[in-house]
Amino acid sequence: MFIDPNSDVPLYVQLRTQIMEAIVRGDLSLGDTLPSVRALAGDLSVNMHTVNKSYHELESKGIIEIVPKKGAMITVNKDKQITNNRLSALSTEFKPVVVEAMANGMNEEQLHELITTVIKNIKEA
Amino acid sequence: MFIDPNSDVPLYVQLRTQIMEAIVRGDLSLGDTLPSVRALAGDLSVNMHTVNKSYHELESKGIIEIVPKKGAMITVNKDKQITNNRLSALSTEFKPVVVEAMANGMNEEQLHELITTVIKNIKEA
Repeated sequence: MFIDPNSDVPLYVQLRTQIMEAIVRGDLSLGDTLPSVRALAGDLSVNMHTVNKSYHELESKGIIEIVPKKGAMITVNKDKQITNNRLSALSTEFKPVVVEAMANGMNEEQLHELITTVIKNIKEA
Repeated sequence: MFIDPNSDVPLYVQLRTQIMEAIVRGDLSLGDTLPSVRALAGDLSVNMHTVNKSYHELESKGIIEIVPKKGAMITVNKDKQITNNRLSALSTEFKPVVVEAMANGMNEEQLHELITTVIKNIKEA
């Protein structure tokens, strides 16, 4: 994993996103455990609070489960059909970014092109 | 505008999104001014800090400009072609939500369907 301290994207968001990218690429999958907060913070030279915040956000999104004394375990399966509940939650998360894109003058076709590009970048990362 | 205090979406995000939705619908456009922080906080029965945070985030996204003693003015034109700089910034904002969707098992086709639905909801709101 690579964290860019000069990015505009907060460190905990970068870390959260990279863990999800590893799931999409298949490098992490259902049942795998993440490094301890202390170990990962040391590896990435970031504050333990940063790693802790990423892990808790991933837990609140249902991506991992944090088991006291055992660690953080992946609870999603990218090859299993998404549930309707999860789909509805995701639609709430997409709304602010889609509306921002449209307020900036993007039309529907450009939005679909952007999504295609973003998906391509994630798969190739 | 309608703010739902029971939503999981933070109040300042709801407000920020609603202002952008008003731009997309054409209810607010380039050069229009927003109500003062105090007035809007009173109208919506929310804390002034909430409105202030929304306005500052909209300013950092280049959607409005806050002119001291004059107020907040819309600086985007939804009918003007988006700039490449803005497009690149938006692509950074889409990545975390797209990767989350994919980690949850959504495929490319489902993502495009979700975007179509979200656009439809914004336009019809």
